[in-house]
Amino acid sequence: MCKTIQLRHGDGGIHTSKLINDIFYRYFGNPILLKGRDSAIFEMSKGRLAYSTDSFVVKPIFFKGGNIGKLAACGTINDLTVSGAKPLYLSAGFIIEEGFDIGQLERIVSSMQEVCSKTNTLVVTGDTKVLDRGSVDGIFINTSGIGSIYDNYNPDPIGIGDEIIITGGIGEHGTAIAIRRYDLNIQGNIKSDCDSLTNILVGIKKFLPHVKMMRDPTRGGMATSLNEIAEEQGIEILLEEDSIPIADEVKGVTEILGLDPYYLACEGRMILISEKGYGEKIVKTINKLENGKDAVLIGRVVDKSKGIVCLRTTIGGKRRLYALSNSMLPRIC
Amino acid sequence: MCKTIQLRHGDGGIHTSKLINDIFYRYFGNPILLKGRDSAIFEMSKGRLAYSTDSFVVKPIFFKGGNIGKLAACGTINDLTVSGAKPLYLSAGFIIEEGFDIGQLERIVSSMQEVCSKTNTLVVTGDTKVLDRGSVDGIFINTSGIGSIYDNYNPDPIGIGDEIIITGGIGEHGTAIAIRRYDLNIQGNIKSDCDSLTNILVGIKKFLPHVKMMRDPTRGGMATSLNEIAEEQGIEILLEEDSIPIADEVKGVTEILGLDPYYLACEGRMILISEKGYGEKIVKTINKLENGKDAVLIGRVVDKSKGIVCLRTTIGGKRRLYALSNSMLPRIC
Repeated sequence: MCKTIQLRHGDGGIHTSKLINDIFYRYFGNPILLKGRDSAIFEMSKGRLAYSTDSFVVKPIFFKGGNIGKLAACGTINDLTVSGAKPLYLSAGFIIEEGFDIGQLERIVSSMQEVCSKTNTLVVTGDTKVLDRGSVDGIFINTSGIGSIYDNYNPDPIGIGDEIIITGGIGEHGTAIAIRRYDLNIQGNIKSDCDSLTNILVGIKKFLPHVKMMRDPTRGGMATSLNEIAEEQGIEILLEEDSIPIADEVKGVTEILGLDPYYLACEGRMILISEKGYGEKIVKTINKLENGKDAVLIGRVVDKSKGIVCLRTTIGGKRRLYALSNSMLPRIC
Repeated sequence: MCKTIQLRHGDGGIHTSKLINDIFYRYFGNPILLKGRDSAIFEMSKGRLAYSTDSFVVKPIFFKGGNIGKLAACGTINDLTVSGAKPLYLSAGFIIEEGFDIGQLERIVSSMQEVCSKTNTLVVTGDTKVLDRGSVDGIFINTSGIGSIYDNYNPDPIGIGDEIIITGGIGEHGTAIAIRRYDLNIQGNIKSDCDSLTNILVGIKKFLPHVKMMRDPTRGGMATSLNEIAEEQGIEILLEEDSIPIADEVKGVTEILGLDPYYLACEGRMILISEKGYGEKIVKTINKLENGKDAVLIGRVVDKSKGIVCLRTTIGGKRRLYALSNSMLPRIC
């Protein structure tokens, strides 16, 4: 077998078949995928489906806490999860540069499969394109996914007093990427939070009738996600600055680089808005779950007349937190 | 509005929102997409689903008969169609180079929507990434799609005597790309066959109990698709060379370039294998449909002991037609 990807691996002929067999089928292999047809075919029972897609172009492709493959699987799985769905099936489309190291491809695909195994998700259909050197920067991955929405998730509109939860520290993915991208020599253990959120959804299943909104604050970070919700629902969200979990390393790195952690991508955190009075119970439940020990209430809905997000600062002031209005860090995911 | 794509159009903030509103929502707009959530959400009834994905990296992005957008919509719709499914929902992921012309993006998106309108398919979820100049060659598009498989399509294994149909001339997409790529000054009207096959599936719906296999011969062309079928089912397919429809311009251009039309991609043709005795009836039905006037029987299954494809040549000989074993024309789709 070749050690690097060649143009012929993408031409649809016998070399493409070999690559599919040697790498993709070996890791993703499941009875639906292995039929090798133009489409995956499976039975679905009646119900509400969630369907999502994302392309991943992160640079560098390997970073502390993950790689582009882990990110591509988690990204789509999390989009389904925050829609209240159990993720079931994924598609995976690879665009690869001629000369790309097949060992690296294997690590990437293996990471994707780890996430799939952990979340009981199957990659059932895929595609590989190979481009000449210089036409694509290494590897890009698109995933799409289908999930089945839990019957007891039928969110009511958000109202005054509803409570805002974040499941862990913010900005860690963005910070891990920045450290690698700018070759910062930083002490400490900061790594990307990149992970699947499915266990958290499953863990709080009995509370779903009291959950009004879930989001994963990826590109644009927590501030942008909350502003989107506020604008869409015409609500004012008031956050308590002191309660927002931000690791010291994230504070340090963002200060050095002039970045703002509120706008830095998370790739394994969930924002959850719960019915008034349920926030603490949900937080306690999440605290017992993997990736949930730092979950905390960070604010509440205080008004229904305007779509804005405000921050009660440590010194007692109140300032508006806007949606991201200019580029932070490109190729974060 | 800017005339070219800027990095900030991809950062997930307000410029991304503006691009989504101005271009993607304007063309694709439908109630499911316009919810603007992390996932599209829709009800499905019980049944068999088809699910497929493809990435499109064609170069040049505009060619006679289509563009990367038309191709991206048709490609996935056709993968669902040849699986016996009515296409329902698409995802669309765009990876765009900084500086890309927004007018061109609009033409591309508009072409995608034309295909969707024609096939009653909705783009319900999407994603846009913008990369710095040089990291991606112009624009790549990934589509995935979900379709509902017709209840009367439960294909039996292929047997001796079963008949092979092609719905039109082969190699026209590959030829159209080659002409543009190599700036050939060719007379004539050859254009890509790029189009949706959904109307053909709908037109032959009553014959589906007598259809054993459908394929769209894209990368690797007709020869590769037939070899995949032959190998998978352990059958020998014998084609009549004289009956295979190849336009004169395709013959001319492929001779000049040393390409073989049997291996050149089609993007709007279907190979169909019908139960013995049904081929002529199905051909006559297809002949009355758009893009079906040149549909014709091109061969039959002659043996069940080996997975090969042979060609009875014009002069009466018989030669083996192999799967594509080396690169023909990269970035064809």
